[in-house]
Amino acid sequence: MRENNFTRDFDKLFNPRSVAVVGASNMLGKWGFNMPMNMIGGGYRGDLYMVNPREERVLGFPAYPSLKDIPAPVDLLVVAIPARKVADVLGEAAEKGICNAIVVSSNFGEVGEEGARMERQVADIASQAGISIVGPNTMGIYSKTSSLCCLGAPVFPLEGSVGFVSQSGNLGVQLMTWGYRKGVGFSRFVGSGNAANTDISDWLEYLGDDTETDTIILYIEGIKDGRRFLEVARRITPRKPVIALKAGKGRQGERAVLSHSGSLAGPFELFRGAMEQAGIIEAETTEELVDLAAAFSSLPIPRGARVGVMTLGGGWGVAAADSFDREGLELAVLPQEVIAELDKFLPSFWSHRNPVDIVGNVQRSNHFRVIDAMATCDEVDMLITMGTLLGRDFWLENMFKTSVRPFLSMLRYRTTMLPFFQLSIWKGFRESLSRRGERNPEGSGGINPGEAWQWTDTAIIRRIKRLMQQERKPIIAVAVNEGERSASFRMRNSGVFTATTPERAVRVAGKLARYSRFLAAQAKKAGA
Amino acid sequence: MRENNFTRDFDKLFNPRSVAVVGASNMLGKWGFNMPMNMIGGGYRGDLYMVNPREERVLGFPAYPSLKDIPAPVDLLVVAIPARKVADVLGEAAEKGICNAIVVSSNFGEVGEEGARMERQVADIASQAGISIVGPNTMGIYSKTSSLCCLGAPVFPLEGSVGFVSQSGNLGVQLMTWGYRKGVGFSRFVGSGNAANTDISDWLEYLGDDTETDTIILYIEGIKDGRRFLEVARRITPRKPVIALKAGKGRQGERAVLSHSGSLAGPFELFRGAMEQAGIIEAETTEELVDLAAAFSSLPIPRGARVGVMTLGGGWGVAAADSFDREGLELAVLPQEVIAELDKFLPSFWSHRNPVDIVGNVQRSNHFRVIDAMATCDEVDMLITMGTLLGRDFWLENMFKTSVRPFLSMLRYRTTMLPFFQLSIWKGFRESLSRRGERNPEGSGGINPGEAWQWTDTAIIRRIKRLMQQERKPIIAVAVNEGERSASFRMRNSGVFTATTPERAVRVAGKLARYSRFLAAQAKKAGA
Repeated sequence: MRENNFTRDFDKLFNPRSVAVVGASNMLGKWGFNMPMNMIGGGYRGDLYMVNPREERVLGFPAYPSLKDIPAPVDLLVVAIPARKVADVLGEAAEKGICNAIVVSSNFGEVGEEGARMERQVADIASQAGISIVGPNTMGIYSKTSSLCCLGAPVFPLEGSVGFVSQSGNLGVQLMTWGYRKGVGFSRFVGSGNAANTDISDWLEYLGDDTETDTIILYIEGIKDGRRFLEVARRITPRKPVIALKAGKGRQGERAVLSHSGSLAGPFELFRGAMEQAGIIEAETTEELVDLAAAFSSLPIPRGARVGVMTLGGGWGVAAADSFDREGLELAVLPQEVIAELDKFLPSFWSHRNPVDIVGNVQRSNHFRVIDAMATCDEVDMLITMGTLLGRDFWLENMFKTSVRPFLSMLRYRTTMLPFFQLSIWKGFRESLSRRGERNPEGSGGINPGEAWQWTDTAIIRRIKRLMQQERKPIIAVAVNEGERSASFRMRNSGVFTATTPERAVRVAGKLARYSRFLAAQAKKAGA
Repeated sequence: MRENNFTRDFDKLFNPRSVAVVGASNMLGKWGFNMPMNMIGGGYRGDLYMVNPREERVLGFPAYPSLKDIPAPVDLLVVAIPARKVADVLGEAAEKGICNAIVVSSNFGEVGEEGARMERQVADIASQAGISIVGPNTMGIYSKTSSLCCLGAPVFPLEGSVGFVSQSGNLGVQLMTWGYRKGVGFSRFVGSGNAANTDISDWLEYLGDDTETDTIILYIEGIKDGRRFLEVARRITPRKPVIALKAGKGRQGERAVLSHSGSLAGPFELFRGAMEQAGIIEAETTEELVDLAAAFSSLPIPRGARVGVMTLGGGWGVAAADSFDREGLELAVLPQEVIAELDKFLPSFWSHRNPVDIVGNVQRSNHFRVIDAMATCDEVDMLITMGTLLGRDFWLENMFKTSVRPFLSMLRYRTTMLPFFQLSIWKGFRESLSRRGERNPEGSGGINPGEAWQWTDTAIIRRIKRLMQQERKPIIAVAVNEGERSASFRMRNSGVFTATTPERAVRVAGKLARYSRFLAAQAKKAGA
């Protein structure tokens, strides 16, 4: 039984023409200061009304003594005053015909019986007046379409297609910051807080129909109406991936949830099973939630779980394969013709099976040929490539390490030999150029200086992007020798997810495969 | 039965006065080019001899037609020629009385029966002559004490106290690069490769007695003599932490190991049990291996598994507590006096239990008081703090987001209001200053601009360092709002491990607790 079955108008929430802030303040660090400041900073261009009876102006805007005094309609109300005063303000909001309120005030249900009583009172007033409450105890919302950063923290997400509902506001805005660093763009964010008269299902339902949102991620501590949540999810998952991090694992996790949002986490294993049945993809850590948001919003869904692995060094192939069983993935079995094809140009001692270890071969054209051969092979549903992506800092760093450092060392410790050193380098460079492309079945061969352009990340990412479009298979490049910063730079510029460790690539691949199995089962059901 | 029981002289390997490179080359990208270039770049100052019958000079050094022609003693031999020629060179090395050889050549045991036969032959010649072989199929070694970067890749590790043996060279040097980024310093590195006549146990034994090495990390694919390995480990673990990433998990991981190093991984669960009994700490991923190297080389070992968690936002506390059960950790139960102490200055609605959620309180002095109270509490063996560490980029980014961005938005969209905006900000700033330190039990309170210095990472890291020294308890600060780069910058400058996600902090804490339990059990045994 849901008691909150009044008509909701979330379009006004995410695209408000005017916002009023009750409790607006000039005091640094207060919620009533942060929220309007971040709306301003985020570039919100609608009308802003500040309500504060003790100020003439707040942040330069005229301050009204009360909500009633605002001489224009208000689409969205932000409430940042002590808990015990919230009910009155909602009464005024009802009179003004406001239908969405973000209540940042805490000291409600999360702190005990008295708070819970106040929260029920606030919820009742709101529901009777047809007001949907975000919160109380919320960090706020973000909406791409109005550049609305109505958030307690100065977080200005990248614009994109990921919708995000988080039961922890703090965690939510941080993950959007991680997303920013990784190049993941968001369409909407809701910090659902105590969810007085809105449930996570309401937000999920909205995002499911939202044309701005292609991928949905959730951070869940507890759900009031689990059955409705799963129903809503089931309607969405065949069309859009829904990824959830469910908190409250184990005895101690449950206890922590209880003292945070006052939710009953419930037995995790039960919930996990239900999520899987509904086609919801589980993220196991905060980091993985952002990885999955990046991957699902930028990669095609594979047709199966058979993965081709290409590596420049065997150890990385092993590190990747190590979690295949756990993630429900299979090492694709390469057909004889692919092996024969690779035999044409790889050193004789390459692994001759998947993972394809090209044993440190540094002829760049060969990397492309391996990727092409594996991506176009029917036995391969996905491709993970390691060591081929170098990272933004690689060139500068490596130029320094391979030329400047040795030069400086020679200069310092073996000064008289420096001219001979330079001559040898020059001689070798010329020889490398003249013998470029030569095969050396017994060794790794030299570098071909003519391939400099092909060694750039732009070149390989372009190739991967083209192959992904052509074959509709995810290709995950792992940049083992770079940092997060460089990976995010690339994602932001190319829109292609890349991983920073093999294990993280495999986890993402596992989740893609799981979603693929779910979609296939759905299609079968629909066909039957 | 070990057949390789000749006397070893690894001191000469790690501190050679002279190195000869057979197969030295001027050709870019060849092993015979990379190894001496990286030795030069790394600042090795001993004698370097190049052996190449077809060149007059290699990298400026006179080239000798063969090893025999070098007119001086050689402490360390590097062999970078095709596999089938290696045996002859080792014969010559024997004559020259060389007792350590790094054989980078591949095409040995890892590629089939013919290769394995050659490898046995090479091993026999070497063992009879008393030559220890690193490899074949190795990436080389690093040694801090001689600035010896005898590596196939341009990796110049930070100097430190972590000794590292890796059965995959490629993976090994990459992890040292990750270590470099994280601020983890190394004393020695050995890419053990095919381990023709040296086993991982030999290296472990050496590092166990090595005064330059305080923490040992291992990447293992397979071990020839498991019993000896565990014996050696058992002698070391009561004195130095030994951390191992064991590859070859599951059916598919085993297969990948087999095709990489030709090792039989064996049933992983068996090995895991044996490792735990020997006091070896297991790393589950490559990333974790580096995290653990950083943590164990910079944090004290806790006395137990009771963890205090402090968080600025409840969600992060939950994300941390979620894996406590899995990691064998306990949420410390705070005694009444600590709760009473925190009640004195925290907002009334703080969580009143562990995790200590200080509900977004931004009075910096309170952060320090919470950390002090928890670190000095007898019920707390370790402390994880989240949200208090801000990261190097935070100040610039946040200054921009909280002042420049709103200013620019006002200028652009609400130009005429800009002067009023500025006046309001100024008024609020003055008021915040005059009301600093005031308690606000109902809300989060404002920021105190007078605390600017205390908000720096330097201030909090100093406090944490002092507390760690005083209490001998690990304190792990999680910088949820920063990237890897910033974390490593701090580690390099302060020598204190910090984590980038709560889950990673908890994993590290779990491993510290496990080692603590092992040490306690050892002490008990010794006492009994």
